[in-house]
Amino acid sequence: MSNTFGNIFKITTFGESHGTLLGVTIDGLWGGIKISQKNISDALDERKPSGVGSTERREKDEFEIVSGLFEGKTTGAPLTIIIKNTDARPQDYESLKNTFRDGHGDKSWLDRYGYRDYRGGGRLSGRETVSRVVAGAIAMQILNTLGISIKTEIVSIHGDYENFDNIIKKAMEMHDSVGGRIKCTISGVEAGIGEPVFDKLDAVLSHAIMSIGAVKGIEFGSGFHSEFLYGSENDKIENAGGILGGISNGQDIIFNVAVKPTPTINSGKRHDTCIVLRIGAVIKAMAAITILDYYLIKYSSNNLKRYFKKEV
Amino acid sequence: MSNTFGNIFKITTFGESHGTLLGVTIDGLWGGIKISQKNISDALDERKPSGVGSTERREKDEFEIVSGLFEGKTTGAPLTIIIKNTDARPQDYESLKNTFRDGHGDKSWLDRYGYRDYRGGGRLSGRETVSRVVAGAIAMQILNTLGISIKTEIVSIHGDYENFDNIIKKAMEMHDSVGGRIKCTISGVEAGIGEPVFDKLDAVLSHAIMSIGAVKGIEFGSGFHSEFLYGSENDKIENAGGILGGISNGQDIIFNVAVKPTPTINSGKRHDTCIVLRIGAVIKAMAAITILDYYLIKYSSNNLKRYFKKEV
Amino acid sequence: MSNTFGNIFKITTFGESHGTLLGVTIDGLWGGIKISQKNISDALDERKPSGVGSTERREKDEFEIVSGLFEGKTTGAPLTIIIKNTDARPQDYESLKNTFRDGHGDKSWLDRYGYRDYRGGGRLSGRETVSRVVAGAIAMQILNTLGISIKTEIVSIHGDYENFDNIIKKAMEMHDSVGGRIKCTISGVEAGIGEPVFDKLDAVLSHAIMSIGAVKGIEFGSGFHSEFLYGSENDKIENAGGILGGISNGQDIIFNVAVKPTPTINSGKRHDTCIVLRIGAVIKAMAAITILDYYLIKYSSNNLKRYFKKEV
Amino acid sequence: MSNTFGNIFKITTFGESHGTLLGVTIDGLWGGIKISQKNISDALDERKPSGVGSTERREKDEFEIVSGLFEGKTTGAPLTIIIKNTDARPQDYESLKNTFRDGHGDKSWLDRYGYRDYRGGGRLSGRETVSRVVAGAIAMQILNTLGISIKTEIVSIHGDYENFDNIIKKAMEMHDSVGGRIKCTISGVEAGIGEPVFDKLDAVLSHAIMSIGAVKGIEFGSGFHSEFLYGSENDKIENAGGILGGISNGQDIIFNVAVKPTPTINSGKRHDTCIVLRIGAVIKAMAAITILDYYLIKYSSNNLKRYFKKEV
Repeated sequence: MSNTFGNIFKITTFGESHGTLLGVTIDGLWGGIKISQKNISDALDERKPSGVGSTERREKDEFEIVSGLFEGKTTGAPLTIIIKNTDARPQDYESLKNTFRDGHGDKSWLDRYGYRDYRGGGRLSGRETVSRVVAGAIAMQILNTLGISIKTEIVSIHGDYENFDNIIKKAMEMHDSVGGRIKCTISGVEAGIGEPVFDKLDAVLSHAIMSIGAVKGIEFGSGFHSEFLYGSENDKIENAGGILGGISNGQDIIFNVAVKPTPTINSGKRHDTCIVLRIGAVIKAMAAITILDYYLIKYSSNNLKRYFKKEV
Repeated sequence: MSNTFGNIFKITTFGESHGTLLGVTIDGLWGGIKISQKNISDALDERKPSGVGSTERREKDEFEIVSGLFEGKTTGAPLTIIIKNTDARPQDYESLKNTFRDGHGDKSWLDRYGYRDYRGGGRLSGRETVSRVVAGAIAMQILNTLGISIKTEIVSIHGDYENFDNIIKKAMEMHDSVGGRIKCTISGVEAGIGEPVFDKLDAVLSHAIMSIGAVKGIEFGSGFHSEFLYGSENDKIENAGGILGGISNGQDIIFNVAVKPTPTINSGKRHDTCIVLRIGAVIKAMAAITILDYYLIKYSSNNLKRYFKKEV
Repeated sequence: MSNTFGNIFKITTFGESHGTLLGVTIDGLWGGIKISQKNISDALDERKPSGVGSTERREKDEFEIVSGLFEGKTTGAPLTIIIKNTDARPQDYESLKNTFRDGHGDKSWLDRYGYRDYRGGGRLSGRETVSRVVAGAIAMQILNTLGISIKTEIVSIHGDYENFDNIIKKAMEMHDSVGGRIKCTISGVEAGIGEPVFDKLDAVLSHAIMSIGAVKGIEFGSGFHSEFLYGSENDKIENAGGILGGISNGQDIIFNVAVKPTPTINSGKRHDTCIVLRIGAVIKAMAAITILDYYLIKYSSNNLKRYFKKEV
Repeated sequence: MSNTFGNIFKITTFGESHGTLLGVTIDGLWGGIKISQKNISDALDERKPSGVGSTERREKDEFEIVSGLFEGKTTGAPLTIIIKNTDARPQDYESLKNTFRDGHGDKSWLDRYGYRDYRGGGRLSGRETVSRVVAGAIAMQILNTLGISIKTEIVSIHGDYENFDNIIKKAMEMHDSVGGRIKCTISGVEAGIGEPVFDKLDAVLSHAIMSIGAVKGIEFGSGFHSEFLYGSENDKIENAGGILGGISNGQDIIFNVAVKPTPTINSGKRHDTCIVLRIGAVIKAMAAITILDYYLIKYSSNNLKRYFKKEV
C-alpha cells in the first residue's frame, strides 16, 4: 500500500538501510528509450554525502539495471534497478534493540506493524531515498526532452541566508543538528498539467514531497505569505507558483520546503549534521516523477483524439 | 482520475457550481451503520456563508441520500448523496464566456481539457466542497465512535491574530479580499496509523488538504519554524505534530494551513471577502476522510491475525 | 472497492433494484465530446425486457445527465447519469425478509456486510446493469469513431441452436428457466492493445464480463475446445480469438460467454425466463468500457513521444 | 500498469526469460510473520519441469529474499525475492530477431511498445510465472493458518481423461504439442469473501487465472454446462462453484481452466510438449494471492467495528 507511487509512471521501492540492497521497479514506460546511466550516476552523486558535517557512512551507490532493458533500451517491461549496501553496519544498532530514539519513527513503526527492524531505522532511514533518486533520474531524462528542467536551491539554514558552512560547523561542535528551507523551481511545464479536484498538481506534489523523511512543510507561490497580501495583490501571476485551480498555467512552478534538523544525532550513530545539503536531489526526484506521471495522465485521454476516423 | 479520493473509504464526487446538483458516492463502508442525518446537516451548516463579508449566494444545502441506505442503515452498497443547487445563476457568468479571470483556474481548465464550463468556475468552484463536507460528516461519525475528534481554529486573518471582523470589513470597503491561517488539531488517533515511505500520514493529509481550492501551504508540528530550532530542541515530542516517520505517535496531530485571499472578487460576481471563515469545515472533512481511510488500511492486515487457526 | 471499474476511463455505479434510482459517474473523458443521447437510449432499449418470457417489471429507463455536460458537450468534469426506478415494488419482497432464495446472493451479501437490503436482491439485482449499459453506450460512441464495433449473438439456449422461442415457452409452462451461450465479436481493434503479465486483454475482459450477474464462464478463440487440437493446428490465427500474449493482434476479438438459467424463478417474483435474450447489451457495454480504457492506457505513454523536443 | 496485481496484498513482478533474474515485491503484509522458505521451495519444485515431454531448460530456481525480512520475520516493509536465471541461452534466439513465431505474443508486444526483447519471449515467457509462484507460496502459508487449502488436478489432456503419458509421448513423436483442462478446488474459504458488482470473487479469480499465459477459458461450478440444466436444477448448491452473487458461500470454490497446446514448438527452441503438467502450480499461486487479498479487503472494514468505544 505504501511502497508504490504514481499512476501511469509507477514506482515500487524496496530495501532497508542496513540490509543487502535497495531497489526500485519502474512500470509504465514505453519501449525504445535509451536509458542514460550517466544521468542516474550524476543524480546519485548529487545525493551523496559531501561537505561539512556529512555522515561518515560512505556508500558507493553503484547501481545495476537487472530487468527491463534490452541492448540499452527499454522494452516496455518493468525496469528494476538495485543498489547494494556496501557500508552497512547493522551491529552498530544493537543498542537500539530495546529502546526508541526521540524524533525518529522507531516506535511508530512498531505500533503500525507489530515488529521492526531496529537497524538504523530500517526502511524509515534516509537511505531509502536512493531508490527515489534513481527513478527520478529516469523521469528527468524524459522530461528534459520535453524542455523541462528542475532545480533546487537552499534558501536558508537554521534561519541564516548566507553563512551555511559556519552554521553547520557550529552545530557540529555542539554535537547538534540544523534544518533549513529549500526552494524548488520547475521550468518548462506546459499549461494544462494536473487534475482538478482531488489530484490538483500542487496537492500531488505536496504528497510526493511531504513523503520525504525530514520534510515538515510545503508552500506554493506566495504560500504562507499570501495572507499578508490583499486579493488584488495576490492575484498577480507570480504569486500563483505556476499552478491555478490545481492545473499548471505555463509559468515556472515554484514551491518552498521546510526541512527539520536531523533527529537525535547525539545517539552516536553516523548522521548528517544538516540534511538540507543533500535533500535537494530527493526533492528533484520526487518532483520529476510526479510531473511525468501527470503528463502521461493528460496525454492518455487528450491524444486518443487524433486517431479518430471521424469526429466524436 | 481526479474525482475519486481514498483507498478503502473511497469517495467520488461530481457536479458543478451552476449545474443542477452536486453529489458524492461513498464506497467502502460495511453494513449496519445508522447514518446520522443531523451530523451531515450540521457539517453543511458550518460550511454555509455567515458573518461579515460572506457571499450573497444562499444555498439551502438540502441533501438527499439516494442509494446505499435501507431502513436508515448502510447495507455495504455505495452511498450516494446529492445536494441540489437552488440559487445558481449561470446567466451571471455570460460575460466570462470569452475571458479568463486572474487568479482563477479558468484558463488552466481549458488548457487541460480543451473545453470548459465558464459558469462560476464550473467544477473548480468552492461550491464543489459541499460534496466533501457530506462525506466528511459520515467519516467523522465513525471516527467519533473511536474517540477521535477534529477541530479547526483561525490563527490569523491578513496577518492579524485578533480583530478578524474589522480586517474583513476594511477589505470589503476596498472591494478587496483577505486570506489567513488555520490550525487543525486531530485528537484521539491511536499510535500506528499511516503508511511509511510514500503514504506517510503527513503526506496523505497534505494531499487531502492541498486539494482544497484556496489552500497554498501546509506544515506539521514545528513546520517552517523547525529550522530555527536545533535538533536537540526540535526532537521534543510537541514539535512532531503527532506524526513520526509518517506514522501517528498517539499525540494530537497538528497542522497549519495557509489560505490565500479570494481571487478576483472585483469581477462583480458573488463571493466571500474572506474564505477563511468557512474553509475550516472543509479542512475537517478532508482530515476525517483521510484518517478513517488509514485506519481501515491498518486494520485490513493487522486484524486478519485474530482469525488464524494456528500461528503463521 | 467494488463499485468502481476501469483505470483511466473509470466508472462508479450506485443504486438498488427497488430504491429511488440507479446511476453512474464516468471519470476520465476529455472536454468537447458531444454526447449522443440517442446512443444511450438505444442501448437501454436493447437491454429492456421484450419477447417471450420476459419479466413483467416495466421500467421506462429514462435517464438524465446531471453533471459534466455543458451545452451538450463534456467538459472534463465527471459525467453523472441517473435513471429513476418507476416500477419498483419493494413491498413484493417482504416475504424474503427472513429467508434466502436458492441460487441468489442474498445470504452471501449478509455474510459479507452483516446487513442487507432484501428487496429484490438490492444491489445484486440484474437491474444494476442499467448503469453499465449507460456507461457502455458512451464508451461505444468513442470507439465507433475509431472504427471499432462490438456485436453479440445468441449461440444457443438450453443447448438448442435454433428454436429459441419454443425452448423458452416450454420453460415458462414448466415455471422454470433456461440459460445459454453468447458469442461476442469486437471488430476494428488495432494491434497492440492490452497490457502483458497481469492485465492481459483477455484477463481484463474476463474480469469485466464475469462481473455480470448470471455469467458462469468465458473462453477466447478456441477456448475449451483448444485441447482437442494439436499445437500445430491451434497456432492458426483464427484460434487466438484476436489476442496473443494478452495483447490484441489486429484480428477480431472473439469470446464465448456461459449464461446460467435465471435462479429461483419459482419464488413468484417478476423475472425473465431466459436472461440470455437481454444480457447481450450488458456484455457489449462491459466490453466497450474495457477496450476504451486499454486504448487510453496505451496512448498515455506511447503518445507523449511526439511532444519531445529531442530524442529520448 | 501491468506488472502489479492485488489491492492490499499487492505484488509487483519483474524480469525476463533470458535476462539476469526474475523477482517479485510483495507489499501489504504486517510484521512478525515467520516466512517459510520451505513452502517457497516446494511451490517452485512443483512448477519445475518433470516427467514426459518437459523442456530441456533446467533452472535451479534458487531464490533469495533480499528485503523485508529481519531475523526471519516480516517487518511490514516490502518483501522482495529474486530468482537468478542460470540456464538462459539468449543466443538461441538470434534467429528470431527478424521474425515472429505463430501463436506467440512476439509481434503483439512490438505493436504495444514499439520495441522488444526477442529472446524467448522476454517477459511474455512462461518463465515469468516463477515470480507468481513465489508470491503465491507466501499467500498460501497465511491462508493455511486460516484453514484454507487449494488443490488442482488435471481433468483431461488432449481430450483424454486417462492416458496422459501416452498422449504426450505421441505428440512428442509428432514434434507437436497438446493442451488440456485443469480443475481447481479451494476449500475452507468462509462465507462472505468477494465484492459485489465489479469485483465479484469469480470475476477477480478469472482476471487472475486468465492472466496466465496459456489459459484460454475459465468456468465456475456448472459453467458452460449450466445451459443444459433448467433453473430448478441449476439452483442446487453444488452448481454454484462456491460463489453466489460474486461472494463466497462457504462451500468449496470450484473452477475449470482451459489450457491451450504450447505454441510453435516446432521452432526448435526448448519447450514443454504439454504445459498442463506444470501449470497447476501457477493456478494455485494466483488463486491464493487473490483469495488472501479479498480476505484482507473484507477485514479492512468489518473489523474496525470491534474498536469502537460506542455503537456507530
